[in-house]
Amino acid sequence: MSIVNPISLSAPYLVFIGDIESPTYAKTGLGLVQWRKELVAGQLRFPGNRLDLGVPDLSVEKAFEEGVRSLIIGVAPVGGTIGQHWEVELIKAASLGMDIVSGLHSRLESIPGLAEAAALSGATLIDIRIPSASIPIANGKKRTGYRVLMVGTDCAVGKKYTALALTESLQKASINATFRATGQTGIMIAGTGIPIDAVVADFVAGAAEMISVNNDAEHWDVIEGQGSLFHPAYAGVSLGLLHGSQPDAIVVCHDATRQHIDSCPEFPIPSIRNCIDFNLQCARLTNPAVKCIGISVNTSGLAPEEHKNYLQALEKDIGLPCVDSVIDGCDAIAKNIVQMFCSHD
Amino acid sequence: MSIVNPISLSAPYLVFIGDIESPTYAKTGLGLVQWRKELVAGQLRFPGNRLDLGVPDLSVEKAFEEGVRSLIIGVAPVGGTIGQHWEVELIKAASLGMDIVSGLHSRLESIPGLAEAAALSGATLIDIRIPSASIPIANGKKRTGYRVLMVGTDCAVGKKYTALALTESLQKASINATFRATGQTGIMIAGTGIPIDAVVADFVAGAAEMISVNNDAEHWDVIEGQGSLFHPAYAGVSLGLLHGSQPDAIVVCHDATRQHIDSCPEFPIPSIRNCIDFNLQCARLTNPAVKCIGISVNTSGLAPEEHKNYLQALEKDIGLPCVDSVIDGCDAIAKNIVQMFCSHD
Repeated sequence: MSIVNPISLSAPYLVFIGDIESPTYAKTGLGLVQWRKELVAGQLRFPGNRLDLGVPDLSVEKAFEEGVRSLIIGVAPVGGTIGQHWEVELIKAASLGMDIVSGLHSRLESIPGLAEAAALSGATLIDIRIPSASIPIANGKKRTGYRVLMVGTDCAVGKKYTALALTESLQKASINATFRATGQTGIMIAGTGIPIDAVVADFVAGAAEMISVNNDAEHWDVIEGQGSLFHPAYAGVSLGLLHGSQPDAIVVCHDATRQHIDSCPEFPIPSIRNCIDFNLQCARLTNPAVKCIGISVNTSGLAPEEHKNYLQALEKDIGLPCVDSVIDGCDAIAKNIVQMFCSHD
Repeated sequence: MSIVNPISLSAPYLVFIGDIESPTYAKTGLGLVQWRKELVAGQLRFPGNRLDLGVPDLSVEKAFEEGVRSLIIGVAPVGGTIGQHWEVELIKAASLGMDIVSGLHSRLESIPGLAEAAALSGATLIDIRIPSASIPIANGKKRTGYRVLMVGTDCAVGKKYTALALTESLQKASINATFRATGQTGIMIAGTGIPIDAVVADFVAGAAEMISVNNDAEHWDVIEGQGSLFHPAYAGVSLGLLHGSQPDAIVVCHDATRQHIDSCPEFPIPSIRNCIDFNLQCARLTNPAVKCIGISVNTSGLAPEEHKNYLQALEKDIGLPCVDSVIDGCDAIAKNIVQMFCSHD
């Protein structure tokens, strides 16, 4: 079955960094190189910029000669707008037929001359933040294949990273697995996906169904989560994604030192046990057999010597594999998936 | 404190019916007359149309003479588009300075000449389906005043009707109460509100906070619900609305003879007890003191002689006032609100 997805990026990529020197603002470019280095032909830095993604420097012209098919804006400056001094390079790339890909708030078509350049060459302008208008209402029908969804005790606790690491670990364990993106950086890394938080409310579960369609019986979709059922602003998004994903398994993501819900000081972080229980309770509406298969904790706020003790204590308490996916990877969680779902003895 | 709302209708109204003869397609017009007769100056029917809202027939010119300030399209034909043969009347009304109000899918500005006519006269074109772009992210902060939210075992089980009837019953009991609309027909009846299911997912809870701002300590907002936590497509919308509303009280709405969730034959209707418990569990995130204060059942599918027995049995089982709000009104639920929240003895 073909997967209908509204966003589809053409590789290889030229990653545009321009004059942005802060790694924080270049997360997308760094993520692309970390997870999809084979698709990145090079980086476009303005003279004097010391930020280095570790891929060859290419001009637009050189990238064109090397067969680059998309220029991806790999930076998100404060305010989320496209720098005016970037426009010449973007128009040049579009003129040469490269698709221009942006996850910024300001729309690509607002750049004077860019749409015309793209129209003449046949290039496409792709604003990752704009979801397709053709997302259906969810129907809740059971789909073939397996699904594992990342959920969280809060926003920004490593759900995307964990999904990417778990996809790699499953593939290493000879499981057919695909990362499914629901956010902008994830979509750039996957080359496809739907920005779930930008979808009109009625269509969130339908978008999740569209992201993860019927597949081979033994195939795993590893779905990037969004928000948290415990976040007073975003729980609805998380619930729609949970229902539409129909996960067979969930991984709970957590930050070891987070004090309260992101931007909401009155709201405490739930316990991991509560987070497991409530996500399973809600997920059962569309998949009564759902299980929690592991915990992924961002321990970067702990002293290095505490990391191991923290995870061991948690593992003893919860009874599931607990990892810091950045430090430990997700092999332990992948192994648990194999044990719980894939053994046919 | 002033209430900032993106949609605000100016009364009195001329309700446009045109050539639509089916009461099913004229629900909005019928609802307007039922709940806001004092704001409706008249109806505009095309010659020969036998559907009658029970208000005076007015031409656009006559309505203008009588001081009508808005023409409201009170019908929703199949397809949700504006009939081409309606356009002359709409343009005439806009030319005379009347706001044009529509809840249809097709946009008012797509009618040739209508935007120009409105611009010249200073009239406003109001598409109820388009939410404001200025809705904030929810902050979860506790607000002053009381709130009661309608929730449901499914979609389309009488949440809007119950909210309107409960508002009337509270006002009769000398409680200061305001109906807060979250859907298109509700917005037309209230003259203000936000179409919650058309809001981008990240902003649903923020929209609910915006609909029901700080108010007098003894004031009640009676908030129209949307969807159901048990609907596989819409539960996320319901959860965002539940969290943003921070209800002190919920009323569970139910259809006595509904067999399965709307459009989803694989999904059973939850028991009323489960629906109460799960809504309270979820609502506690933003209001730990939330209580269920009554049940409103659409018993129209039962034989007339069964209505009373059904509600009595349910009341005995649940221990809360149970009404069919169309038959019985909501006085019993309003009385329970007074007993549970307003007695200062």
